[in-house]
Amino acid sequence: MPHLHLEYTANLPELNADVALMRLNNTLVGSGQFGAEFDIKSRAVKLETFRVGTALAERAFVHVKLAILSGRSEQIKKQLSESLLAVVRDLCEWPAGVEVQLCVEILDIDRESYSKTSVGH
Amino acid sequence: MPHLHLEYTANLPELNADVALMRLNNTLVGSGQFGAEFDIKSRAVKLETFRVGTALAERAFVHVKLAILSGRSEQIKKQLSESLLAVVRDLCEWPAGVEVQLCVEILDIDRESYSKTSVGH
Amino acid sequence: MPHLHLEYTANLPELNADVALMRLNNTLVGSGQFGAEFDIKSRAVKLETFRVGTALAERAFVHVKLAILSGRSEQIKKQLSESLLAVVRDLCEWPAGVEVQLCVEILDIDRESYSKTSVGH
Repeated sequence: MPHLHLEYTANLPELNADVALMRLNNTLVGSGQFGAEFDIKSRAVKLETFRVGTALAERAFVHVKLAILSGRSEQIKKQLSESLLAVVRDLCEWPAGVEVQLCVEILDIDRESYSKTSVGH
Repeated sequence: MPHLHLEYTANLPELNADVALMRLNNTLVGSGQFGAEFDIKSRAVKLETFRVGTALAERAFVHVKLAILSGRSEQIKKQLSESLLAVVRDLCEWPAGVEVQLCVEILDIDRESYSKTSVGH
Repeated sequence: MPHLHLEYTANLPELNADVALMRLNNTLVGSGQFGAEFDIKSRAVKLETFRVGTALAERAFVHVKLAILSGRSEQIKKQLSESLLAVVRDLCEWPAGVEVQLCVEILDIDRESYSKTSVGH
């Protein structure tokens, strides 16, 4: 906990996913909401097959999902969401002539049934 | 909002994911539930590593997840789910001798903490 | 139902995803919670782009998400979670010098709006 998923469409060539994850993780550490930096587990997936709406215009999107253990207030979730969106907005030069939608979603992980261990420490 | 995820196993060679997303998006637009066609963001992922159950029979599945902002009634969710399933059922000729499971799931996005912006308009 | 998602970072070369899914499915069948073995639909995704925390140490993770129809008790969810984690822990020799986090999360599928059919039976 937390788990971050970054999805981005393949028509955003300037988006560097490694850099994006580092910046997003730094933002989560800076939020003060999470006990240890190594708890933050993030992954990025480039979407090769996608469609936005039904029109023929060229479109793209970036979607961040942050899953955190249940129990945090709506205010904290909203703050996390907005701070991640601010990072996403500055991730790269967005391509000219493409409508790019940027979204951040916060999900609860059911705390009671979440299990975790680690090896190799 | 909404976000649609289409997953399909790699042993369904007749399934054209681009066509599938277009049909699914058209169905969502036609439902009248969403304000603007460009709000619909869909992606498809082919699953190369999968397993259905524990028997040796050849099996496949297609799973659609539709995530919508919280607040819609169970009846509307059920209608959306059934209309998407009807589209999935007709996506292609299903391979002979393979048990194919088709599923549609509707998820709520927490409305309060969902953040969004767009660039390039 | 149920749907199992296995994610694992690309720096775990000893992890055999096909074997992992078979063992996880066997565990779910053995739990007695699911009516038919063919209902269990599992997939594995190798994460090529990921980051754990912000430090430079080499790190890895495996994350299992099990989505089941809503209505089961917290106790049953906890048992499922712990039994899957026990399987994950024994999936392979973990690489020396790498901190590996192993997690299992249980999610509810909204029962009312879940649609399903099958073809080819």
